[in-house]
Amino acid sequence: MFLRYVILDAKCVICGEIKNMDPRSSVIDKRLQNIKRVIAVASGKGGVGKSLVASSLALNLSKKGYKVGLLDLDFTSPATHVILGVDGLYPEEEYGIIPPLAHDIRYMSITLYSLDEPAPLRGQDVSNAIIELLAITRWEELDYLVVDMPPGIGDATLDTIRLIPKLEFLVATTPSLVAYQSVRRMLVLLLELGIPINGVIENMVMRSSDYVKSDVMELGVEYLGEIAFDESLEATLGDVSMLSETSFYKKIGNIVTLML
Amino acid sequence: MFLRYVILDAKCVICGEIKNMDPRSSVIDKRLQNIKRVIAVASGKGGVGKSLVASSLALNLSKKGYKVGLLDLDFTSPATHVILGVDGLYPEEEYGIIPPLAHDIRYMSITLYSLDEPAPLRGQDVSNAIIELLAITRWEELDYLVVDMPPGIGDATLDTIRLIPKLEFLVATTPSLVAYQSVRRMLVLLLELGIPINGVIENMVMRSSDYVKSDVMELGVEYLGEIAFDESLEATLGDVSMLSETSFYKKIGNIVTLML
Repeated sequence: MFLRYVILDAKCVICGEIKNMDPRSSVIDKRLQNIKRVIAVASGKGGVGKSLVASSLALNLSKKGYKVGLLDLDFTSPATHVILGVDGLYPEEEYGIIPPLAHDIRYMSITLYSLDEPAPLRGQDVSNAIIELLAITRWEELDYLVVDMPPGIGDATLDTIRLIPKLEFLVATTPSLVAYQSVRRMLVLLLELGIPINGVIENMVMRSSDYVKSDVMELGVEYLGEIAFDESLEATLGDVSMLSETSFYKKIGNIVTLML
Repeated sequence: MFLRYVILDAKCVICGEIKNMDPRSSVIDKRLQNIKRVIAVASGKGGVGKSLVASSLALNLSKKGYKVGLLDLDFTSPATHVILGVDGLYPEEEYGIIPPLAHDIRYMSITLYSLDEPAPLRGQDVSNAIIELLAITRWEELDYLVVDMPPGIGDATLDTIRLIPKLEFLVATTPSLVAYQSVRRMLVLLLELGIPINGVIENMVMRSSDYVKSDVMELGVEYLGEIAFDESLEATLGDVSMLSETSFYKKIGNIVTLML
């Protein structure tokens, strides 16, 4: 399995738990050193359009002339490969893995290897997979690496935060009370941990309301704007040129300029 | 912390990892022995309406005269307490925890204790919380226990499957390719594990299409029906009498009869 390229031995000999992450952490630091900014697109709740935001953000930045990478760390329900229509894409292996180009973006995802098999990874396995994906991938010089984060604030998110010190968060929510309540918990945690937050995007808005906006601002977090519910998005899955014609995509393009 | 009621000592003395789950498993078996059927409402993907399905299913069963419990195990983004408008509800403690009544349903959720604090539980902590919630809760005699499952097929789902041998799955999806792809991975896993599946509900349908239905049936899984996207649901959050007037709720009522 390619994920075993980097083998490190800081494990408890009895239970296999990793006691000391330093060796891999330092490999990862080296792998990411030529990347100027790492934007983590995250949400406390699934189904808010996180992967569409991440993909559209990466595509928009690339269109503006930046060198961009996209890393899908959402092992629970990876989606960027469907959105980008990435098929038959294989990374080159050369002292590590060189992410293939997809629509001018350097693209990396666990799905390039596992595809549609059910992969019920145990928590420690997910952590290991993330560590090894980060340790193995040879990103070239990039202006932006966009990371499609795991949902919620569980292990996978905490590990990614620990492993990528220069992570900045872009948080997606919907106006739904149920979704925003989880997103809010994530925001509070990020604030408590002192992690930079670029702001919040309110997606799938059907009827404007100030509820999310005012609460986000009360937390001291930037509200980057709302995006109207766009029924046409589903039909664009897999077709980037169709995606780039949607109002959703263009709105992300506007929001990008607030983050540069 | 209440979750430490049941203390068991099958841990690795060096790393704290639990080596032997038997003691707690047998407590759990006893706790669940007076429950006739346990229905796990699950989805491979967040944001498909899983918690609304679980809540409406429990309410519908209760309205039909069955004795019903609802257990929220979605630690990532718990939502049933918002849907049911459960506020100021505290369980009684008496040789364990007696779940309080909410709308005639015996209701238990981690949120009865943690409420809106950010709780970034590490994987092992989530597993422990689930085990202890199951071990501590004194369900009375029930016809149905509806479990709002954690999203995806990670640790929390696998642990719940392991701990509740009589679990039957009711799987929610949306027509979205991205959602169904994750849901399909869950279905394949459940089939491989030989776990009973009552069927699949296709939620948030905007335009009818046979794609999900035919694929579900090809897998040999029952397709229980589609539910139209219901914009009015958001306004019912917290108000069960409003919820029970929606077409969504009534459709769940029809689907229930297929499962009895």
